[in-house]
Amino acid sequence: SRSINLAVIPGDGIGQEVVAEGLKVLSAVLPQDVKLETKEYDFGAKRYHATGETLTDADLASLKQHDAILLGAIGDPSVPSGVLERGFLLKLRFAFDHHVNLRPSKLLPGVATPLAGQPEIDFVVVREGTEGPYTGNGGTIRKGTAHEVATEVSVNTAYGVERVVRDAFARAQARPRKKLTLVHKNNVLTFAGHLWTNVFNKVAEEYPEVTTDYIHVDAATIYLVTDPGRFDVIVTDNLFGDIITDLAAAVSGGIGVAASGNINPTREFPSMFEPVHGSAPDIAGQGKADPTATVLSVALLLRHLGYDSEADRIDAAVAADLTERAGQPARSTSGIGDALAVRVAG
Amino acid sequence: SRSINLAVIPGDGIGQEVVAEGLKVLSAVLPQDVKLETKEYDFGAKRYHATGETLTDADLASLKQHDAILLGAIGDPSVPSGVLERGFLLKLRFAFDHHVNLRPSKLLPGVATPLAGQPEIDFVVVREGTEGPYTGNGGTIRKGTAHEVATEVSVNTAYGVERVVRDAFARAQARPRKKLTLVHKNNVLTFAGHLWTNVFNKVAEEYPEVTTDYIHVDAATIYLVTDPGRFDVIVTDNLFGDIITDLAAAVSGGIGVAASGNINPTREFPSMFEPVHGSAPDIAGQGKADPTATVLSVALLLRHLGYDSEADRIDAAVAADLTERAGQPARSTSGIGDALAVRVAG
Ligand SMILES: CC(C)[C@H](C(=O)O)[C@@H](O)C(=O)O
Ligand SMILES: CC(C)[C@H](C(=O)O)[C@@H](O)C(=O)O
Repeated sequence: SRSINLAVIPGDGIGQEVVAEGLKVLSAVLPQDVKLETKEYDFGAKRYHATGETLTDADLASLKQHDAILLGAIGDPSVPSGVLERGFLLKLRFAFDHHVNLRPSKLLPGVATPLAGQPEIDFVVVREGTEGPYTGNGGTIRKGTAHEVATEVSVNTAYGVERVVRDAFARAQARPRKKLTLVHKNNVLTFAGHLWTNVFNKVAEEYPEVTTDYIHVDAATIYLVTDPGRFDVIVTDNLFGDIITDLAAAVSGGIGVAASGNINPTREFPSMFEPVHGSAPDIAGQGKADPTATVLSVALLLRHLGYDSEADRIDAAVAADLTERAGQPARSTSGIGDALAVRVAG
Repeated sequence: SRSINLAVIPGDGIGQEVVAEGLKVLSAVLPQDVKLETKEYDFGAKRYHATGETLTDADLASLKQHDAILLGAIGDPSVPSGVLERGFLLKLRFAFDHHVNLRPSKLLPGVATPLAGQPEIDFVVVREGTEGPYTGNGGTIRKGTAHEVATEVSVNTAYGVERVVRDAFARAQARPRKKLTLVHKNNVLTFAGHLWTNVFNKVAEEYPEVTTDYIHVDAATIYLVTDPGRFDVIVTDNLFGDIITDLAAAVSGGIGVAASGNINPTREFPSMFEPVHGSAPDIAGQGKADPTATVLSVALLLRHLGYDSEADRIDAAVAADLTERAGQPARSTSGIGDALAVRVAG
């Protein structure tokens, strides 16, 4: 009999609320013969304040035992900026070598977008997750003085770039439009830019059916608002991916519906799935948060574990629910979760 | 009697066409007693192909003799990516210490925007121009092999950050809303982020009337499409500024109307004014390019040189022209320039 051994990290703020709904929908969609085991972890601001710990070696060893990780959100204004981000979120992505940060953007029928004319949007960003300016390389001298110098080093390796570019080509090849766009800034960041561009062009030779394209990151933000339909699959570096996926989420229904997977395709370590949004302390505990992004992240999780038809059922349920919701008064977090659980079970 | 000694760099592609209109409007707006002297320089792809040169020491010495520089656009697909960007555009910004890269965004009445609901947009981005990931610091080892490593080093100094932050506070103080937003990514790029944040907070103490705000760059792209009205003045690093100003241009009328100034407030070197758009080789030579961004850059140039009322006349002419153009068939490059020249003279 099949089983899913899931690590659950509700985290801070609305993370708690949205993860509860994600689990509700997950339980509802799984067939009877699949045994779901969950273990909850208390990472986040509360634990940091109580113990000073963000993510220990023992935590990592424990997390490693699971098939996958579901995360709500980590972060609180009471913790200095960077402590939980570098000490938990990025530490986990790096420790578990989550090099494929997958972020689909699809504007579903009836969903509000800030763009005029309700354009068709259906693309996926493959963001590199373990290199670039996110490595924590760099430093500060003469801190706090008028002569302070602070550096940040973007580290890019052929090994790291090639594996994520390959993943993106394979995804593009599997989609009807078979189009892959490299987003970088190779006219200014020429060292990293040449590496990315050369690797991209080299791997492209193995995928003659995939149409390729290159766009500078600044121009990409223009197209994301004037012609988002031009994108099918985008592959990009860690920082550019961070920036354009927030914009992509904004134009395709908002961060309330933006899902993501921090994926290790080798399965050497469990992959982690999380909504793109943060902990939103301003609305936490009020039942106002939209759990849809978390539910869609559960669908990505299921697809990663090979439960494709269950993932499809969640996607369909969300699409139907969003269409039904259009123009209606806002529903509560658990109201949305309940409705989705009913739909996926039915 | 007064005079303006202007270096003119039409450059590549549509640069030639739009600069001609910029000069037309400049001549028309200047009072009789101001003597305008221009010297044209042939920088760009053609000269690079003919001589291998992008910008020599002699060129810099010659450019330095002018009061200001008007640039069209530099770049052509026949030149490898990075050669003209690093060898001309960035070389000039760095050589002349253009640390304030000023990019206003104003959605004028009647101007098309990809955003629904014609929001009010009126802010200015103060982008740092001489540091950050643009320094060209970094390198490559084992180039072209499976073991290549490429780095890009973002260099940030208290000196460089403080002067641009001060400039931004002064601009915010002079505007009715008096609001300044720092855009960075201080939760991930913690070394540079702390420097920017600390300097920002320190200078803020001297401007008690200015309301301050901090937003991560990824979130800033969301607000730029969902709530652009929240911004008044933004100060940010070189790369983040590059990215968000293209997005800002896109939402506030497109790059056809986005102006910029590469300013050295000390006046030790001449400042350079240029449209945000590139050389657009696909439409070059067809009289299709919109010269408005260049004309608005001329207004920034005039304001920098102290010709405030002339700059205001250009801004007003552009606003009137754009309103008149709304919904009309597209006019030619010179048609728009002629109309603006008539308006500013009238
Ligand atoms: C919270 C932060 C570390 C993170 C990132 O920058 O990757 C977030 O913005 C994201 O996109 O997942
Ligand atoms: C052409 C390029 C070097 C330049 C930049 O990145 O600054 C351009 O994008 C800009 O915004 O002026």
